[in-house]
Amino acid sequence: MAGKKVLIVHAHQEPKSFNGSLKKVAVEELSKQGCTVTVSDLYSMNFEPRATRNDITGAPSNPDVFSYGIETHEAYKKKALTSDILEEQRKVQEADLVIFQFPLYWFSVPAILKGWMDRVLCRGFAFDIPGFYDSGFLKGKLALLSLTTGGTAEMYTKDGVSGDFRYFLWPLQHGTLHFCGFKVLAPQISFGLDVSSEEERKVMLASWAQRLKSIWKEEPIHCTPPCSGSLDYHATFLMTPAATQFVLGVSITIFEGYKLITFLPRSAAVADQR
Amino acid sequence: MAGKKVLIVHAHQEPKSFNGSLKKVAVEELSKQGCTVTVSDLYSMNFEPRATRNDITGAPSNPDVFSYGIETHEAYKKKALTSDILEEQRKVQEADLVIFQFPLYWFSVPAILKGWMDRVLCRGFAFDIPGFYDSGFLKGKLALLSLTTGGTAEMYTKDGVSGDFRYFLWPLQHGTLHFCGFKVLAPQISFGLDVSSEEERKVMLASWAQRLKSIWKEEPIHCTPPCSGSLDYHATFLMTPAATQFVLGVSITIFEGYKLITFLPRSAAVADQR
Repeated sequence: MAGKKVLIVHAHQEPKSFNGSLKKVAVEELSKQGCTVTVSDLYSMNFEPRATRNDITGAPSNPDVFSYGIETHEAYKKKALTSDILEEQRKVQEADLVIFQFPLYWFSVPAILKGWMDRVLCRGFAFDIPGFYDSGFLKGKLALLSLTTGGTAEMYTKDGVSGDFRYFLWPLQHGTLHFCGFKVLAPQISFGLDVSSEEERKVMLASWAQRLKSIWKEEPIHCTPPCSGSLDYHATFLMTPAATQFVLGVSITIFEGYKLITFLPRSAAVADQR
Repeated sequence: MAGKKVLIVHAHQEPKSFNGSLKKVAVEELSKQGCTVTVSDLYSMNFEPRATRNDITGAPSNPDVFSYGIETHEAYKKKALTSDILEEQRKVQEADLVIFQFPLYWFSVPAILKGWMDRVLCRGFAFDIPGFYDSGFLKGKLALLSLTTGGTAEMYTKDGVSGDFRYFLWPLQHGTLHFCGFKVLAPQISFGLDVSSEEERKVMLASWAQRLKSIWKEEPIHCTPPCSGSLDYHATFLMTPAATQFVLGVSITIFEGYKLITFLPRSAAVADQR
């Protein structure tokens, strides 16, 4: 949609990879719509994944015992974070939608992208205590995980050897993105790259481009309870039927109404990242 | 137990931190037993988390398109992996038990530890296709996650805002450790550091030391089906009642017989990491 700003955080070493193609397709399609697209190509930037005292400039607030969470929170307030973090925070702040493009490594993001999350989404910028989940500081923004797997879609079903893919999405979609206040769009999962044909890959790319044409009309998956009264949480683990059409060659059982987590609101809560 | 070898993969920046104390307690207690204890102190080693072509020495098998999974698999076979990976693989190979000591960052390990997993546990060394889950190449070894959280134990229950802690353990315990063949011991979770008193921390440390005295007698949590006939998977998400005694000041509901995932064995399966 013309005027919208998109940040793509890209985590693959090889421009000619399928991940590289997915990123390219997204840049092309979104630019065609009139969006402003920024790419953080983490490997080509040699992005630093390690969370260390180098992330703050000047003296630490406690020179005796270094706490990464405390020091980066203080540094954020004093504008004393290191420049590569500030630059990524600026990109996130400007974005209406952040797309994370990556191959699944050990049921999660590659370390270079984990480092982006650890360092960029710091307290003060992305959340505070209180100020997380639906009150996270990045509320109003959309996020979308676009990932590739070697294993087939069948392996990532309830009956598959690796379990329902929604389980491995939990720490990323709920524990990270929702925690920071993002509304999460259905994940784009390109399954089975280790066994897919050239033709199947082309179809997956075309499907991603097609989805992006109407991405701004999509409803987020439920990371907050949709109805009043009940605060039952039945969200991140649910893909909408509409979303599944984007996953090709796959027969996914949709568990409508599947409820994994129930929560009650808490007033005095404490964040995870220290 | 005298003669046993333990590797502690430690991921905290500050020796005086609570994570540092947990590591120290483990080294002391296990050494006292006559174990050989090796520590990979990732921050002090400035361990490289990024998975790049620098991880292979010599020419890549495909100079045109770089695939990290393919190239590191080939390099493993040709003994052409870079020296820091080989050194960590040697430590893992020698160990009877690997303890991972870390603060929870975004429902997962810090990026520096994720990088250790991404780079060290490569195809050929830790698994092959076939050759994963119960047939993973690190079978016969034990693994244990010892982690700290800022949030309280109540937040990580079924009714808590962050959901049952067993959900965030899934990618690590099942998707990574079990995938490589490890038998997984119950996690040691030191909850609520953001709100704990000095006294409570001392009790948590003492509890960890106490648990380690009989660690070699512990049964792994079920990552493989315990009974013949049925291949129902109901394992990683179950903590044994015995394990919960180590989690202090916490009332955790144990869902005995809780079954989240069911799987059937598959003959032609493909791994996740490429």
